[in-house]
Amino acid sequence: MRVRNKPWAKELIEKHPEYVVTDPEAFKGRWQERFEQKQPLHIEVGSGKGRFIVGMAKAHPENNYIAIELERNVLVSILEKQIDAQLPNLQILHVHGDSLMNYFTEGEVALIYLNFSDPWPKARHAKRRLTHKTFLEIYEAILAPGGEIHFKTDNRGLFEYSLVSFSEYGMRLKQVWLDLHISDYEGNIMTEYEEKFSSKGQPIYRLEAMFSNK
Amino acid sequence: MRVRNKPWAKELIEKHPEYVVTDPEAFKGRWQERFEQKQPLHIEVGSGKGRFIVGMAKAHPENNYIAIELERNVLVSILEKQIDAQLPNLQILHVHGDSLMNYFTEGEVALIYLNFSDPWPKARHAKRRLTHKTFLEIYEAILAPGGEIHFKTDNRGLFEYSLVSFSEYGMRLKQVWLDLHISDYEGNIMTEYEEKFSSKGQPIYRLEAMFSNK
Repeated sequence: MRVRNKPWAKELIEKHPEYVVTDPEAFKGRWQERFEQKQPLHIEVGSGKGRFIVGMAKAHPENNYIAIELERNVLVSILEKQIDAQLPNLQILHVHGDSLMNYFTEGEVALIYLNFSDPWPKARHAKRRLTHKTFLEIYEAILAPGGEIHFKTDNRGLFEYSLVSFSEYGMRLKQVWLDLHISDYEGNIMTEYEEKFSSKGQPIYRLEAMFSNK
Repeated sequence: MRVRNKPWAKELIEKHPEYVVTDPEAFKGRWQERFEQKQPLHIEVGSGKGRFIVGMAKAHPENNYIAIELERNVLVSILEKQIDAQLPNLQILHVHGDSLMNYFTEGEVALIYLNFSDPWPKARHAKRRLTHKTFLEIYEAILAPGGEIHFKTDNRGLFEYSLVSFSEYGMRLKQVWLDLHISDYEGNIMTEYEEKFSSKGQPIYRLEAMFSNK
């Protein structure tokens, strides 16, 4: 995604420490303190402009949500949505997905969302894919027993790769959708990207997976 | 598939005991005796008219192949192809897939092909799907260590179901194709059904899977 520079982003983020966490290490193991209520913690790795996670937080007040996004010029769109919505169950984290171990303690997370992650199509970049073994190790560590990964993408190559990567890691597929939008799956909240591209006839792939030993 | 009755099928089959095995129990553990050479044994469960397995046997003289088909009026088309081709590495077995344990001994098979199996779309018929747990138990028993299942279908529901069924069984996905015909997979031999329907734009799904403990 090409991102327009927003010179005002930094200032807006600094103005809202109640929504955007800038010292995430401080909350490792204590994320529930950032929310009104103690309830299951769902995180999204790579939230983009936040349509999905804000929609989920609105639809599911019974869970707490953390949007994780590295790119400041994108993250600020999540913040704008949250300034409007003022959801007590949504926090925004300005970090990279590969450092999650520094910010979450073992078993602190109930569910991880990966939505339309960068496919990194070249084989030599496979390690950067958010479903690469290296990331799965991190997810396994921070997920609670019974915790799940919910992953959707329109990228066929990434989905094929991820099915094999999850399987090789010993994870269990709970359910798979090979054309989400024509399935009977209910409660799908579309990302900005999904809304824009799904009309082109490309199927959206989705899966729910668990770690076997959790 | 609607099958035309072929009154002459029975007689033709009886005329060719060198190709069609009518007493399969007799060869349990001794299938290699039916072939010119002792080499890896690949079987196809539900061979239909045999385009795939005859093509494979021609393309891969280094393996032995067994076509398995229950419906006599369909099986006879495999036999006609074999009468033409006289392949020393192809045998035809006239039985149902759920009784494979009676015809193959433990570890006798190197590879199992499932091609465009009946999807049995109704949930109450799930047990009849050739990728149901009951069948996986059979495949696991007759496959040699390192043995694989290669499965392709155009039926999205069956493929979704099978991914989950394999995963729940603890099998490992070696590779997955979500649109075989536009992939770089080489050596695909199309079934009659595949050739007829793939032109309609429906993707062909394919996977290769292994049993973890094998």
